[in-house]
Amino acid sequence: MPTMFLCKSEILPLLDMKEVIPAVENAFRQWALGKAQMPPKSYLTVDKGDFRAMPASLPGAAGMKWVNVHPANPSRNLPTVMAVIIYSDPETGYPLAVMDGTDITAYRTGAASAVASKYLARKDASTLGLVGAGRQAHTQLMAHAALYDLKLVKVYDLSEASTSRLIKAFPQYRIEAHTLPEVMDSDIVCTVTPAHSPVVRKEWVKPGVHINAVGADAHGKEELDPEILNEAVIFVDDMRQASTSGEVNVPLDKGLLDPNRIRGSLGDVVAGTKKGRTNDREITVFDSTGLAIEDIACAHMIYEKVKRNSEFTRLNFVEA
Amino acid sequence: MPTMFLCKSEILPLLDMKEVIPAVENAFRQWALGKAQMPPKSYLTVDKGDFRAMPASLPGAAGMKWVNVHPANPSRNLPTVMAVIIYSDPETGYPLAVMDGTDITAYRTGAASAVASKYLARKDASTLGLVGAGRQAHTQLMAHAALYDLKLVKVYDLSEASTSRLIKAFPQYRIEAHTLPEVMDSDIVCTVTPAHSPVVRKEWVKPGVHINAVGADAHGKEELDPEILNEAVIFVDDMRQASTSGEVNVPLDKGLLDPNRIRGSLGDVVAGTKKGRTNDREITVFDSTGLAIEDIACAHMIYEKVKRNSEFTRLNFVEA
Repeated sequence: MPTMFLCKSEILPLLDMKEVIPAVENAFRQWALGKAQMPPKSYLTVDKGDFRAMPASLPGAAGMKWVNVHPANPSRNLPTVMAVIIYSDPETGYPLAVMDGTDITAYRTGAASAVASKYLARKDASTLGLVGAGRQAHTQLMAHAALYDLKLVKVYDLSEASTSRLIKAFPQYRIEAHTLPEVMDSDIVCTVTPAHSPVVRKEWVKPGVHINAVGADAHGKEELDPEILNEAVIFVDDMRQASTSGEVNVPLDKGLLDPNRIRGSLGDVVAGTKKGRTNDREITVFDSTGLAIEDIACAHMIYEKVKRNSEFTRLNFVEA
Repeated sequence: MPTMFLCKSEILPLLDMKEVIPAVENAFRQWALGKAQMPPKSYLTVDKGDFRAMPASLPGAAGMKWVNVHPANPSRNLPTVMAVIIYSDPETGYPLAVMDGTDITAYRTGAASAVASKYLARKDASTLGLVGAGRQAHTQLMAHAALYDLKLVKVYDLSEASTSRLIKAFPQYRIEAHTLPEVMDSDIVCTVTPAHSPVVRKEWVKPGVHINAVGADAHGKEELDPEILNEAVIFVDDMRQASTSGEVNVPLDKGLLDPNRIRGSLGDVVAGTKKGRTNDREITVFDSTGLAIEDIACAHMIYEKVKRNSEFTRLNFVEA
């Protein structure tokens, strides 16, 4: 039985936000219903960075993402983050496919925010704010544009080059560079910065906003003033990951956040076991750390799409 | 930068016990010296079996083995255990190679036992006993034959077919089928059974023997009567893994083993920080659970051997 190999240049054309969003939404649902498995990430730390092994299974799918974070890579003309996904048959363990996971990671992260917005933002949301205009901002925008008819996208980044790259990449949308307080005056805000201390102040946050806090993905990182969290209703992607590496990790550690502000997980809301937003003036926050089930859901979607397609590389990798 | 893909049929000819043994020996040394990293294995359990993510780094090498155990596979004409190794550049995180890891696993397991025998068995050892004649027995034999001039190999298995397959596979050695007590009367014994309760009795064990206890690799498995362990000097591959899944896990849990019988790790002996065998009548036991550092050491050895060889598949997998 051959194993399929899908390179970065082949994966990108297979990624369609309109398919990624429901795949990720379903992963959250299965996880909340206890039908998915996701053991803790295993971290391997080396001198120049770290690696994470992220295994997960969903009904009919299993696999593992191996992803690195090497901050000095851009000086060598390499991305900071690269990922490989091994997609396995849960019935036999057979490695059905090995895929580049770099774009899958960016797409599923955008899709997770869009799923959160779908369940937590006001129904009439039509403006999007992006705090940070880097690679992750692109897929946040793409995912929200797939779900919403966006009247205006406001963006702020320390780097003007990043901002104009984002604007040029999406000529079909009305995207404007704004100050941070102006960006925060949007119906939905995605924070996608590498900040280690809060960049968003309490006084900028308007009633009724939904914030996808995406940047914090490691111990010690945070983007939002804890006072925002203390007035918000918070949903996490996974409590275990959020409390160690998500937006809530620093304020929880410092005792600055009332743990009761965390109402549950996004999966609980998707599965219907917890209520999301209850009124139009509530501030909702989704703390997104990135889950292995999101990656495996995408890998499953892609594999099912191409498994009968003969144009991709197949090797008798692990012969029977 | 292209990534190299090495299939099972390509890996096997690249595996030479005379190279695998020193690579594994060096991995034990680096681990004992604190120069290797090996976070705990991450287990993913599904209905039909399980998967393990095994990350590790050594000086100049990093990577991860993704290995499954699906006991019902033979009925589908698939191996129970299959493995894929992603071999990464520790400096950048770049996935340099993706290799079949199935034969690497068998070879490094044999090599680990041979390293243990080198440091723990009597210097004049010339007979090898194999308790179990399955796949793992083959590489135990190959590894010991690479280090010792074996006068006689005695083998016992419940399955006569397995025994005769082993004998036929190595016509160059004198291999004889024997009863279990006779097999135990060897200078070095390797136990490679899937037993969940002791198969080797105390009265069969001779003074001066060295036993490589390889079969126990999961919680609840054991091959040796705990009374053997209580009269032996025990070395583990890794204390964390051994106490949860190695030969010592059951007797430690039941309080049947004095923890002081465990003198240290094989790495301590290889690195010279702990003494191995101290006299010719001592019974020594190596509790082998299988370490990710052994896999990554082999992957490194293979990659260095072939990285300039153009005959293997290269794909622009994760483009810069």
